[in-house]
Amino acid sequence: MPRKAVVLLSGGLDSTTVLALARERGFECYALSFHYGQRHFSELRAAANVAHALGAVEHVTVAVDMPWSKSALTRGADVPKGRAPHEIAHGIPITYVPARNTLFLSYALSWAESLGAEDIFAGMNILDYSGYPDCRPEFIEAFQVTARLGTLAGAEGAAITVHTPLIKLSKAEIIREGVRLGVDYSATLSCYDPSVGRPCRACDSCQLRANGFEEAGLVDPALS
Amino acid sequence: MPRKAVVLLSGGLDSTTVLALARERGFECYALSFHYGQRHFSELRAAANVAHALGAVEHVTVAVDMPWSKSALTRGADVPKGRAPHEIAHGIPITYVPARNTLFLSYALSWAESLGAEDIFAGMNILDYSGYPDCRPEFIEAFQVTARLGTLAGAEGAAITVHTPLIKLSKAEIIREGVRLGVDYSATLSCYDPSVGRPCRACDSCQLRANGFEEAGLVDPALS
Repeated sequence: MPRKAVVLLSGGLDSTTVLALARERGFECYALSFHYGQRHFSELRAAANVAHALGAVEHVTVAVDMPWSKSALTRGADVPKGRAPHEIAHGIPITYVPARNTLFLSYALSWAESLGAEDIFAGMNILDYSGYPDCRPEFIEAFQVTARLGTLAGAEGAAITVHTPLIKLSKAEIIREGVRLGVDYSATLSCYDPSVGRPCRACDSCQLRANGFEEAGLVDPALS
Repeated sequence: MPRKAVVLLSGGLDSTTVLALARERGFECYALSFHYGQRHFSELRAAANVAHALGAVEHVTVAVDMPWSKSALTRGADVPKGRAPHEIAHGIPITYVPARNTLFLSYALSWAESLGAEDIFAGMNILDYSGYPDCRPEFIEAFQVTARLGTLAGAEGAAITVHTPLIKLSKAEIIREGVRLGVDYSATLSCYDPSVGRPCRACDSCQLRANGFEEAGLVDPALS
């Protein structure tokens, strides 16, 4: 019987690649998306399409009620535009949502326990490192300890594992990995501020993606 | 300036006592409740009354979307009735919600970070020990490590602390502590299965509460 895994899926380039990787490793995938007041709501449509295309057994979108969040991803601030990759890589981004990954991984853990799954896949990667504290490997390891201690499954000996296969890859390497796995990136949406489902081509996420495709020597199919 | 703290507040006896304790310690309290499909919805009304009575600066109730939960506290199973305290203390209760405290503490962490608070108060106690893995001190410590690594505040050196002042107290001791602090327990509701806001007097939570008042040599004002 294949092992089950919960896969955090935003519908962007990174998490879509992670879903393809989890599937390649033989997991039966349960995709989990979040609606947390983000402006890029069309990402959730992309997530549904991607989950279907990559054969997820189930796709659940959870509404996260976070009335105190003032991040540019939700409300209260403008999404920065036109920054080059080297400018994006330093400091805490204005798109920081307090404790976001702790919260998202907690939901994944809850679903995993209820499914009898011991594996969670998430798309944190090196580009997020410098800015978001909850993308660091030491954070992931600490969460794993919390997960094992805080669940019935863990208390009974299950080795709950949070897989972050992209953590040390550059955007170009992630894209090459996805291409190898046959991922159709035209279905993904990475933009922080899309209009009518089209990427803005100017926010940090669009810049990093464009740079990744350029470095990989490929054309982004979502822009054609 | 008083320090801010986020206090998990269900509206039951334990969390109400915690709120009174946090206030006594000089914290400006931000009370956080959750609606997660629990049957004991009237607990949330109790939480609002208690937050007001104990001078919380703000009280927020977050809707937690957990479509996979099949616990007796939410749906899919019956709340056990008529069990004596020694029967309740052993094994995993049917009222177990997967990863509940990880999720609730994550929300508290998110709000704390957005408030600039470094302190979280929660009402786990020794009676919950045997059954719920996420009530053990080692879980709380692991969560604290995760919290420090997973937030901007923690990465910048904030010592985020999860206070669990009841963890080693018996129910009778908790009640005596609350009485000392002038808590009006008539406003609290601990029942897993109340009807029209009245406790059922038969579920595990009602039994533990009744036993606690008896041991403390007091009459439960919520039953008069």
